[in-house]
Amino acid sequence: MSSYTPLCWSDIQAAHQQIAPYIHRTPVLTCHNLNVLAGCSLFFKCENFQKVGAFKIRGGMNAALSLPSQAIGRGLATHSSGNHAQAVAYAARQLGVKAYIVMPENSPAVKVNAVRSYGAEITFCAPNQAAREATLQEIVARTGAAFIHPYDDDRVICGQATCAKEFLEDVPDLQIVIAPVGGGGLLSGTCLSTHYLAPKTLVYGAEPQGAADAVLSLRSGRIEKAPYIQTIADGLLTTLSERTLRILSQHVQDILTVSDDEILAALRLVYERMKIVVEPSGVVPLAAVLKHPEVFAGKRVGVIFSGGNVDLSRFGGWFS
Amino acid sequence: MSSYTPLCWSDIQAAHQQIAPYIHRTPVLTCHNLNVLAGCSLFFKCENFQKVGAFKIRGGMNAALSLPSQAIGRGLATHSSGNHAQAVAYAARQLGVKAYIVMPENSPAVKVNAVRSYGAEITFCAPNQAAREATLQEIVARTGAAFIHPYDDDRVICGQATCAKEFLEDVPDLQIVIAPVGGGGLLSGTCLSTHYLAPKTLVYGAEPQGAADAVLSLRSGRIEKAPYIQTIADGLLTTLSERTLRILSQHVQDILTVSDDEILAALRLVYERMKIVVEPSGVVPLAAVLKHPEVFAGKRVGVIFSGGNVDLSRFGGWFS
Repeated sequence: MSSYTPLCWSDIQAAHQQIAPYIHRTPVLTCHNLNVLAGCSLFFKCENFQKVGAFKIRGGMNAALSLPSQAIGRGLATHSSGNHAQAVAYAARQLGVKAYIVMPENSPAVKVNAVRSYGAEITFCAPNQAAREATLQEIVARTGAAFIHPYDDDRVICGQATCAKEFLEDVPDLQIVIAPVGGGGLLSGTCLSTHYLAPKTLVYGAEPQGAADAVLSLRSGRIEKAPYIQTIADGLLTTLSERTLRILSQHVQDILTVSDDEILAALRLVYERMKIVVEPSGVVPLAAVLKHPEVFAGKRVGVIFSGGNVDLSRFGGWFS
Repeated sequence: MSSYTPLCWSDIQAAHQQIAPYIHRTPVLTCHNLNVLAGCSLFFKCENFQKVGAFKIRGGMNAALSLPSQAIGRGLATHSSGNHAQAVAYAARQLGVKAYIVMPENSPAVKVNAVRSYGAEITFCAPNQAAREATLQEIVARTGAAFIHPYDDDRVICGQATCAKEFLEDVPDLQIVIAPVGGGGLLSGTCLSTHYLAPKTLVYGAEPQGAADAVLSLRSGRIEKAPYIQTIADGLLTTLSERTLRILSQHVQDILTVSDDEILAALRLVYERMKIVVEPSGVVPLAAVLKHPEVFAGKRVGVIFSGGNVDLSRFGGWFS
């Protein structure tokens, strides 16, 4: 592994101070009905109500604000078809600079429109990783824009860590915190803030069975691929990096996996009982809590609802 | 018209004190994006987060708590396939008495299950008004249960009035308040609390074009039928009573009508921008605000989101 300087509590505090003017301090909600169903006391950190509809703005904004002033003027760039693209576009607009977003040409119109609504310049590419990276490199070379990776970046991880920081400040006596894991940026940040603020609190990850690379990587200690990719949790398709795996290996208690049916059941409960809109990726931790009562029974459990950007036209297939 | 004693401010205050232990004081939310779209400052009173998922618990609970003690022991009864049925069932369970709910035999399973989940005894009847009333009368005669009408009842109207009371206490300088109108219980209560707490504030009603009886009744001064009944706002199909028409005639500025397409557009905005679940009937006032910018431009507007009980299986048809 490459050399590594662990992120300090002061890094996370500095990130929070820096991004606070640009983000919401999102509310923590509770639901009596869900407590009864789950057999534990649940607290929901609602990043679905965050700017751009997801926690991603925390990391994106922190990375942007951490750039040297001569760099930021050349703009921000990333490749993403999801919430990170919106976060970078929004951060750029707030800072008055350009955003260059590379999106696969088969991206849903609803996501393209969301990114465009924040004023970003979109470049379409073939729908594969090589094309995304090549297109991005060309843009960065031409414009000098700063590439902001969605998770393999300490500034991004520090930004995502502010979510659990707020959570534990508002509900200090959580016994478990559980967050979804895709590339591991949010879960790494959750680990770090919990380590510094509430070292006895256990951190769990939650992952779809149809994108189960993180649980395998955690067990083998090296980056593994998911056995198959097939899930409605479209925000969790990415793979851990060395950087996030290192943090998770040190701090995560376990990663629990759930099926798409279990994700949909959790989604229905959130809509029907809590009356809030969370995206499928965002309810994966709740699905894991409901699936594993033996882990959570009687505990005070903090669940991170990571985002709420959902394509309403897909509901017909989900809830028919 | 029959003799009539106007409801006093002290009646509403007493109702609020009486029901407060059983209801949520629901939050008032704002949304910058929607303000920009609407060209005014919107404040949303979120009764979708209320007990049973709708304001109806306010009136149902107040009526129940206003019964003489020897009456309440014989239970509560009503006929309804909607949120009022859940409210009466919930009120009865809270008070430890039986609820007898008459529902049309073609009621959706999701609604029957919701009422049953509150422990009510359900009696099915033919799907017409005569059968509902006859079945209810038989039950009342047999059990001595107290019938709680969904809106044609001063105790119910006083309960519904507590919604605008909280709203104006929390946001005292609203220039307009707008609520949906079906039978007129919520809108009547909104008129009364606004009259007593903020007499310069204008009250508007909002009604689907496919159940537009209230706007006609308001203009002619007598109970009119809707020209046709066809709307996704299934909570607003009922007709004003003499009691509610009398109050609306005195206090309502106007009733604005909207099409189902306008209701769906508002519903989409609420899901996508606010990330909360509101039922079609509940967004009718927002649809009216968006349709009539000339009425609301630049004003501070209080919008009542009346409920959030929605059948997710219908989303496929709405948002395909």
